Amino acid sequence: MQISNAEIAGLLVSALPHIRKYAGKIIVVKYGGNAMTSEELKDAVMEDLVLLSMVGVQVVLVHGGGPEISEMLRRVGKESVFKNGLRVTDGETVEIAQMVLAGKLNKNLVGLIQNKGGRAIGLSGQDGGMIRAEMKDPELGYVGEIAEIDPRPILDLLDAGYIPVISTVGFDGNGNAYNINADTAAAKIASVLGAESLIVMTDIAGLLADKDDPSTLISKVRVREIESLFESGVISGGMIPKIECCAEALRSGVEKVFIIDGRVKHSIIMETLTDEGLGTMLVKE
Amino acid sequence: MQISNAEIAGLLVSALPHIRKYAGKIIVVKYGGNAMTSEELKDAVMEDLVLLSMVGVQVVLVHGGGPEISEMLRRVGKESVFKNGLRVTDGETVEIAQMVLAGKLNKNLVGLIQNKGGRAIGLSGQDGGMIRAEMKDPELGYVGEIAEIDPRPILDLLDAGYIPVISTVGFDGNGNAYNINADTAAAKIASVLGAESLIVMTDIAGLLADKDDPSTLISKVRVREIESLFESGVISGGMIPKIECCAEALRSGVEKVFIIDGRVKHSIIMETLTDEGLGTMLVKE
Amino acid sequence: MQISNAEIAGLLVSALPHIRKYAGKIIVVKYGGNAMTSEELKDAVMEDLVLLSMVGVQVVLVHGGGPEISEMLRRVGKESVFKNGLRVTDGETVEIAQMVLAGKLNKNLVGLIQNKGGRAIGLSGQDGGMIRAEMKDPELGYVGEIAEIDPRPILDLLDAGYIPVISTVGFDGNGNAYNINADTAAAKIASVLGAESLIVMTDIAGLLADKDDPSTLISKVRVREIESLFESGVISGGMIPKIECCAEALRSGVEKVFIIDGRVKHSIIMETLTDEGLGTMLVKE
Amino acid sequence: MQISNAEIAGLLVSALPHIRKYAGKIIVVKYGGNAMTSEELKDAVMEDLVLLSMVGVQVVLVHGGGPEISEMLRRVGKESVFKNGLRVTDGETVEIAQMVLAGKLNKNLVGLIQNKGGRAIGLSGQDGGMIRAEMKDPELGYVGEIAEIDPRPILDLLDAGYIPVISTVGFDGNGNAYNINADTAAAKIASVLGAESLIVMTDIAGLLADKDDPSTLISKVRVREIESLFESGVISGGMIPKIECCAEALRSGVEKVFIIDGRVKHSIIMETLTDEGLGTMLVKE
Amino acid sequence: MQISNAEIAGLLVSALPHIRKYAGKIIVVKYGGNAMTSEELKDAVMEDLVLLSMVGVQVVLVHGGGPEISEMLRRVGKESVFKNGLRVTDGETVEIAQMVLAGKLNKNLVGLIQNKGGRAIGLSGQDGGMIRAEMKDPELGYVGEIAEIDPRPILDLLDAGYIPVISTVGFDGNGNAYNINADTAAAKIASVLGAESLIVMTDIAGLLADKDDPSTLISKVRVREIESLFESGVISGGMIPKIECCAEALRSGVEKVFIIDGRVKHSIIMETLTDEGLGTMLVKE
Amino acid sequence: MQISNAEIAGLLVSALPHIRKYAGKIIVVKYGGNAMTSEELKDAVMEDLVLLSMVGVQVVLVHGGGPEISEMLRRVGKESVFKNGLRVTDGETVEIAQMVLAGKLNKNLVGLIQNKGGRAIGLSGQDGGMIRAEMKDPELGYVGEIAEIDPRPILDLLDAGYIPVISTVGFDGNGNAYNINADTAAAKIASVLGAESLIVMTDIAGLLADKDDPSTLISKVRVREIESLFESGVISGGMIPKIECCAEALRSGVEKVFIIDGRVKHSIIMETLTDEGLGTMLVKE
Repeated sequence: MQISNAEIAGLLVSALPHIRKYAGKIIVVKYGGNAMTSEELKDAVMEDLVLLSMVGVQVVLVHGGGPEISEMLRRVGKESVFKNGLRVTDGETVEIAQMVLAGKLNKNLVGLIQNKGGRAIGLSGQDGGMIRAEMKDPELGYVGEIAEIDPRPILDLLDAGYIPVISTVGFDGNGNAYNINADTAAAKIASVLGAESLIVMTDIAGLLADKDDPSTLISKVRVREIESLFESGVISGGMIPKIECCAEALRSGVEKVFIIDGRVKHSIIMETLTDEGLGTMLVKE
Repeated sequence: MQISNAEIAGLLVSALPHIRKYAGKIIVVKYGGNAMTSEELKDAVMEDLVLLSMVGVQVVLVHGGGPEISEMLRRVGKESVFKNGLRVTDGETVEIAQMVLAGKLNKNLVGLIQNKGGRAIGLSGQDGGMIRAEMKDPELGYVGEIAEIDPRPILDLLDAGYIPVISTVGFDGNGNAYNINADTAAAKIASVLGAESLIVMTDIAGLLADKDDPSTLISKVRVREIESLFESGVISGGMIPKIECCAEALRSGVEKVFIIDGRVKHSIIMETLTDEGLGTMLVKE
Repeated sequence: MQISNAEIAGLLVSALPHIRKYAGKIIVVKYGGNAMTSEELKDAVMEDLVLLSMVGVQVVLVHGGGPEISEMLRRVGKESVFKNGLRVTDGETVEIAQMVLAGKLNKNLVGLIQNKGGRAIGLSGQDGGMIRAEMKDPELGYVGEIAEIDPRPILDLLDAGYIPVISTVGFDGNGNAYNINADTAAAKIASVLGAESLIVMTDIAGLLADKDDPSTLISKVRVREIESLFESGVISGGMIPKIECCAEALRSGVEKVFIIDGRVKHSIIMETLTDEGLGTMLVKE
Repeated sequence: MQISNAEIAGLLVSALPHIRKYAGKIIVVKYGGNAMTSEELKDAVMEDLVLLSMVGVQVVLVHGGGPEISEMLRRVGKESVFKNGLRVTDGETVEIAQMVLAGKLNKNLVGLIQNKGGRAIGLSGQDGGMIRAEMKDPELGYVGEIAEIDPRPILDLLDAGYIPVISTVGFDGNGNAYNINADTAAAKIASVLGAESLIVMTDIAGLLADKDDPSTLISKVRVREIESLFESGVISGGMIPKIECCAEALRSGVEKVFIIDGRVKHSIIMETLTDEGLGTMLVKE
Repeated sequence: MQISNAEIAGLLVSALPHIRKYAGKIIVVKYGGNAMTSEELKDAVMEDLVLLSMVGVQVVLVHGGGPEISEMLRRVGKESVFKNGLRVTDGETVEIAQMVLAGKLNKNLVGLIQNKGGRAIGLSGQDGGMIRAEMKDPELGYVGEIAEIDPRPILDLLDAGYIPVISTVGFDGNGNAYNINADTAAAKIASVLGAESLIVMTDIAGLLADKDDPSTLISKVRVREIESLFESGVISGGMIPKIECCAEALRSGVEKVFIIDGRVKHSIIMETLTDEGLGTMLVKE
Repeated sequence: MQISNAEIAGLLVSALPHIRKYAGKIIVVKYGGNAMTSEELKDAVMEDLVLLSMVGVQVVLVHGGGPEISEMLRRVGKESVFKNGLRVTDGETVEIAQMVLAGKLNKNLVGLIQNKGGRAIGLSGQDGGMIRAEMKDPELGYVGEIAEIDPRPILDLLDAGYIPVISTVGFDGNGNAYNINADTAAAKIASVLGAESLIVMTDIAGLLADKDDPSTLISKVRVREIESLFESGVISGGMIPKIECCAEALRSGVEKVFIIDGRVKHSIIMETLTDEGLGTMLVKE
């Protein structure tokens, strides 16, 4: 593509109404999947977050870390046991998970944002007592359910001009750590913060009416239509719990949820600062 | 041009380092020429200012208004007398000039910025006692030289989140109005505010080594090189006083002055938020 | 009159309870009539406003400008057509009106206040999007009705320590200017600001029971008594719309409206800082 | 005197330039003599202080209390011994002095200011550790010299909008009270606060070239002229120490000291808010 | 007792949960009785107040002064007449009371707190118009009932970091002083401030079921149980009005009232920062 | 030990002058050794930090983590190579170190502080770009030297009321992590913050003149005496670099450095809030 400076400038100006719409609002980004494993995509995501932050959006990044946790467990010779698709998490496993999430991935993301010219501080559930968790199912061990989110550490960092980068490790009153599903945590954090939008990065193009045909992308779904999409099988497998917690976020005050394709470079900016989104937008009404 | 959302997003991200560079800094834009008479260009300029303001730049707009003043003088049947290229300005003339500048052009620009989603308030020299002037030459009448600029009204509006739009009418202690050259006023205002940049919109492509060959554009000029450009005739005619007051601004603390082509749409954004400028940049060293 | 310093000091002290009453409160002054055409009265009015501002009152000045607009229309050879006492206002007429109001009268008043030691900034309806207007009657052209007042530009200037001086030109979403009746605008501005008082300067002594006998001045009128004063003819002619918008201001939260005689020097100070007012005070109850 | 409202308003306006001069500045008033014993004069002084405070002056009142202390000593049957014009002050005497000053006079003055619509809080030397004193001469007992003034309690009250009313009792590190000369204390307080003016209320018309001829009032004295006024006997007796500490205040940064006639009603307002002062003004140069 | 530094440190740490409980809260201390007459106890009380203030508690001290007033009345040869246990208070008596309270005791307490490293300012009822009183019973003279407490002077001093020390002298609109019972005043002040706790220092161990047996101390009383304690005679004599105003404070929003033994050193710290209180705690429910 | 509440209260009060000394000041605590491995000691340290924070001290905790890193390296089957007492740190080793420090130890400390009622947020070198490092010696690999400390993230957290808990992992511009010696980092952080004190927790009683005789503890050392203590061998082995960076901190503006015995419970409180310290204090002069 040959594109002139004049065209670039025109395109920048075309972002104006979108910037206006989000200025001062909170956007929570759930980060994961391919966008987190490809170095090139990772770079593009961090640039997107810094750009949003520069134009006045209050950005919060929530990340998971499945593959890296498995890799580390493998390195210490710990075999993972799964039960109904959830990892059985004994004390040693949750300790490894916490180290990988809060000690490695979180800090690397913070470092990348700083390198792109943003300002970030990483938080885990213990920081400022942010995520209080409780055991979900004794058979699954330290897999946690969120008991309460304290938004103050996040708001304090936003106020001081930082992008909070959050590892979803939770804690109970006795100091035990719990692995918390990052989708659930991101949705809950968006609710508690009264966020304008929750952006969920996935490895699919969005919801497809026919999952083998990308041209059948569903651009917009109302909360009340979700049930029938479950029934018709449009939403299935791993997408079911993802969509459920998104729906819950909408019911708790979040304005919009975007399911976007993390495999596409700069998909966050495309969704927020250009005229047409590229994934599926969930709205209340 | 066919351009995808992905490409747009990438281009937006490319503005990131530029946004960072100007965030919180003051840019004074001297507005005039074709950019002020074509409705389409005017629209594009206002969009540029609002975009800069949205991404955290402190924008100040200074405007002149030659052709509209002449037109109004003609309508009231007042003939203009010129002397050495400067209009002889009697009491009636300066009153008309003030009405056209502060009452019509200024308010129309303010209205346009508001329409594009920005917030603006217009100022003339009397507002907050901003521009104190004195007579330059009794033969020219109410053509003023700037005696002092009080930056407080401008800073108060910037602090409250407005884009100040300034008509360059000055006043003496006896309540007499003076027509002030807008280039000179813009340069002086940029100095007093300690602006990062002064952008002067003109009807030429920039300084050309050979004025008939656009390919000889001089991209960058150091203050100490200006003298020889005067001598060699590269800078001549109406550009001489323009460049002189720009040089003065650089000597008084303004970091950069851009002579840009106001006939090109979005030239301000091109100069500030894209990788390559399009006109001539003047720097101190 | 021979008056000693001791007597002056005693008189200053006598203003104490009045200062106390208004400190920190907003007073909107509708300025017009003789007080605006005589240089001596103009000077006295500006001194009054600066004094009120110095003793802690938040002063807002709203001005009209009928005679000067007519004069300028005459100079450009434009004939005015009137219909039911309202000027038929075509595009050219409203442009002239805007230039005279916002470009000449407004700035001259601002300059006078600055000269008396106050700090002022002029505002027109476009500034900060302050006065949004709509067409009243297509046959009258650009004569506007107020659709909405945004009080933020006024409050921002008051906060920054300025006396806002307001020209009552309004605008619609398409950038068209409208001439707005200054009495109506002042009353609406006082309502929106929750002003303590609205002072309307007129060329009469106040409401007179017998309009030929100044000794029949009615000092105080309750809102509910206005109707009968219309019926009895005490309020007639041009005073009818004036009193109607004052009554509306009282119903919308303004505490007191003073109809004062602008032909008397320092009538504003007399009304606010001395024991006896001199015109007619309208109150709710 | 028959004086119209119009004249009153004109006179109020005449205070404008004076108000401007003092707005936000600190004026320390040393209160004593007849102005403190006549109920009518006391009332007028308090009105003056409240008026100054209302128009934006930061007023500090410092008072002594000689006659009331003597009267109380008499009531408890304590005989006063004087030495070189200074009361020999044993432990019982200083306790009585403290009670009369801080417990009676101070609180009565505070009450009067509150009644006139001002806001006041009384301070004695212990409050906030304001006045640290040391013994001057063991033979005189608890007559103190000022070792240090801590301006913070005074500034904290001014910031919170109060008129501080100060009793000049000082304290040493062991909890002993000392009677401090109020003229000295007022001058020192004015210095430490960097006051604009110190006003000393006396029972004379000011400095007179011929003390028996009021027409020989000296309106203005420069610091360097004081010495010769001592030598020529123009300043004599009790005025010597008074003038000495005023001179010291001028040398430490106070701009002006006014010696005014406390027997004249509203003399403070006359001196500060009218065109001509009535006593003697001391200036540095 | 031989106690090691390690043990001291452990004990300091044990105060942690108590500090947490009171941080930022207001505690009003009613000071009187033996704790005010013994120099050693007085010292200990002031240390307690300064310690509480240092750990973030907002401390307010309210004091009476019965014995010192009687002593001063005796010195001026004034005989006290009592009626139903209340001193008949003529003009001279209330003047003496005010001088002793506001001029001597108050300032001495302020001085002591400053010596211990705290910051204090004394207030009497006139300061900032804090205590407005009215006559209770013409036969008793200037014995006042509280008409209204203005909490602003107290809150302004707390905000500026001072411990307000309050003499309970009240005033009416005519400048008359009234002696106010300090227990009543302290309870009312605690109510108006919305204090967390009111601590009343007495010369008894607390409420005793059998007043001759200290082992029968009642640790906790609910408001609704007070009536029966009156009836059973557990609360009798001078304790009746004391307990009545405490009950009133609880009903008006104070969380807890502590009746503590002022004869025990550091009883305030014991009550607030150690695990077990030592007197009687009154609570609402 | 049997200790009464009265004695406890007396002891609490004895901390008063110490609290005063540190109020609002910054204390940096370098945490490590036994105090970090024994659960009981760990609890006591966290209580000490929370208590200091509650009484107004600005506490910063800097921790290392040697033994836990070795243990984790062992678990993943990585053998450590040492060179001159410094671990040779390849990419895998520094990744493990970062995970253990920032992901496990840091978060566990934060959790403990929260449990004791304090508020804490953990920081690693990347957070807010706090610790920029560079390679010390290519043969040692990712062992870093501090290039620059940015104090803003620490100050922002202190301002928002948190205890910052810092893992000493540093980063270069290319995103590489470096293991930084925690003693060095703590000393540098104390310098950059202009801390009042640096407390270094060790496993010795302090500096001993005869290292086998605890009774020869040296309580106080001046910077200029350190050299001779190196020469005489009083400071030897691992204490040499520790003392060197402490001396550097003193030279850069830290007031006092305390070498304290981390094996003693509540040694921080003993050192700061009781009369006698227990270790060795280093001072400039």
